[in-house]
Amino acid sequence: MNVSSESRSPAVQTLRWTGDRLELIDQRALPSRFQYLNCSNAAEVAKAVRDMVVRGAPAIGCAAAFGIALEALNCAALPRSEFDSRLAEAFEVLAGSRPTAVNLFWALSRMKRMSAAVAARSTAEAAQALVGEAQRIYGEDIEINRAIGHAGAALVPDGACIMTHCNAGALATAGHGTALGVIRSARDEGKQVTVIANETRPFLQGARLTAWELVQERIPVTLITDSMAGHMMQRGMVDLVIVGADRIAANGDVANKIGTYPVAVLAARHRIPFYVAAPLSTIDLAVPEGSAIPIEERGADEVTGYGGIRWAPVGVEVANPAFDVTPAELVTAIITERGVTPAPDSAKMRALFES
Amino acid sequence: MNVSSESRSPAVQTLRWTGDRLELIDQRALPSRFQYLNCSNAAEVAKAVRDMVVRGAPAIGCAAAFGIALEALNCAALPRSEFDSRLAEAFEVLAGSRPTAVNLFWALSRMKRMSAAVAARSTAEAAQALVGEAQRIYGEDIEINRAIGHAGAALVPDGACIMTHCNAGALATAGHGTALGVIRSARDEGKQVTVIANETRPFLQGARLTAWELVQERIPVTLITDSMAGHMMQRGMVDLVIVGADRIAANGDVANKIGTYPVAVLAARHRIPFYVAAPLSTIDLAVPEGSAIPIEERGADEVTGYGGIRWAPVGVEVANPAFDVTPAELVTAIITERGVTPAPDSAKMRALFES
Repeated sequence: MNVSSESRSPAVQTLRWTGDRLELIDQRALPSRFQYLNCSNAAEVAKAVRDMVVRGAPAIGCAAAFGIALEALNCAALPRSEFDSRLAEAFEVLAGSRPTAVNLFWALSRMKRMSAAVAARSTAEAAQALVGEAQRIYGEDIEINRAIGHAGAALVPDGACIMTHCNAGALATAGHGTALGVIRSARDEGKQVTVIANETRPFLQGARLTAWELVQERIPVTLITDSMAGHMMQRGMVDLVIVGADRIAANGDVANKIGTYPVAVLAARHRIPFYVAAPLSTIDLAVPEGSAIPIEERGADEVTGYGGIRWAPVGVEVANPAFDVTPAELVTAIITERGVTPAPDSAKMRALFES
Repeated sequence: MNVSSESRSPAVQTLRWTGDRLELIDQRALPSRFQYLNCSNAAEVAKAVRDMVVRGAPAIGCAAAFGIALEALNCAALPRSEFDSRLAEAFEVLAGSRPTAVNLFWALSRMKRMSAAVAARSTAEAAQALVGEAQRIYGEDIEINRAIGHAGAALVPDGACIMTHCNAGALATAGHGTALGVIRSARDEGKQVTVIANETRPFLQGARLTAWELVQERIPVTLITDSMAGHMMQRGMVDLVIVGADRIAANGDVANKIGTYPVAVLAARHRIPFYVAAPLSTIDLAVPEGSAIPIEERGADEVTGYGGIRWAPVGVEVANPAFDVTPAELVTAIITERGVTPAPDSAKMRALFES
């Protein structure tokens, strides 16, 4: 991979559409193994989302759209009523895969609208229309990420050391990334940037995915445990924080990977700007505030160990909320494809959709 | 193990003195294996401290004292000059084992004073005197922990859910523990308590040691990753925080295991009391404030993986500060064997040594 090719097409192809299947980089295996996992129907895509083969709000949205497209292709020869009922099932299984990231529901709702729009056409034509819509969602996501990156790069001073949490990179999107998209764009504009990647327990998206993406692109990256973020800020080593989002409430509260909220609280204490980079499809105007966002609780085994080894004693209880909510008051600005929205609030969130 | 025996003698014997060797629970192997590692001289004790076979500020102090005692016994038949130079070497190697916890230096300085006091006696008598002093340091530590536990228990409401970070338990001391000593004492007084244990990356003292100690004693414990502390507080699930300390500066700033500072910042935001439990030997009046406390930087391999598996990509830089500093302003009270000192400051820290 080199820088100039990166600026033309996504260097990391998180999702690949072959015409009759969806190929996903198996993010559970990174960085030790780079391999694709194939999905041929909606249930396989839903399982890949649930098992975190693919993760990251925009990537989940794209995957779900292709899941519907696959199911439609598989059913294209069936009678309309069966086609419709199989599609309805596919929508349900995909919607049940993960609860927090709203892009999943946003993408499914776009696919549902397309499905309704072609309800009078043949099932074969409907299937092609749904494939087309999934491809549009995918293509738009890359463009949106580049727009986010361009808008956000203006906030990154030359020489900045940027902390990020989890992975909001190419691997979390169709390409380029949201938070890492800003960092990539800043670098592409000629700025020297260095990154501090929080490892992001329990699933280690920072250690495994963000570190991997940045090493690939030769952007200097220092890995720390999540517990070290405060110390790094206290020692003056962090100039700004950029993270992605899984769902942004109507008032600007941000649900993102567990551990984001503590980083925001620490950034506020140290007067370090805290930016959230996300597409408009992550903003959920139907949810008035962060406390109403459903927080996924995942299995205990993610916390009691990692990768087949267990380090916690038998008999311990475990909590494993996969996300937390950062109140809007701690967010310096939200960066979307429409630009930079400082000090987000309800009026500004609404206005983003009106412009 | 049962509660009544616990109240008489330390149920977990972190250090065992046999008369001619020091046996240490190998804390690297817990909770999957419970085994003792034997040390026969000062260099072996220093290595055990450096490798974190034994850890926790008070336990390190006790181990270092026994390290000197062992070396004195081994050299008891040598001429005085050789005895003295071997002992001087032992002091040096032990002092170099870990830099942050001050109890190590405090214990070595007590042993040095004893050594000076018996300089005119035979080397055999000197060795016996040093063994006696190490045993006194050990015995006093248990008594001190019980006094800390008793004083702190008054701060724990019945039914409280207590968050702790790292392990400041029996395993971190000669017995009973400091932070966990308070929890044990509260339970022994008949209070219902539950504990949230932060896993404490990178070395996982919370997941491995604190969870193990509490499961042994049937105190309900919920394990979380460090990144979940903010969410738990936000959801109103934490009534108070108690942690130990590795060194407390003259102004009340507290150096403790990395990740303590973020917990203190979060507790302050949520108006949750943040208590530090530590013996007077942890207070270092020679260090005016926290920023002057040396922070140990440990190896990259602790951060890039765990237990022989590596999950970070090749090429990533790593930071691994083992401790951070919580400013006194965030500490609700320090609990020592002299009682509870709310809102610690320089005058109060000095006064503790004058009473």
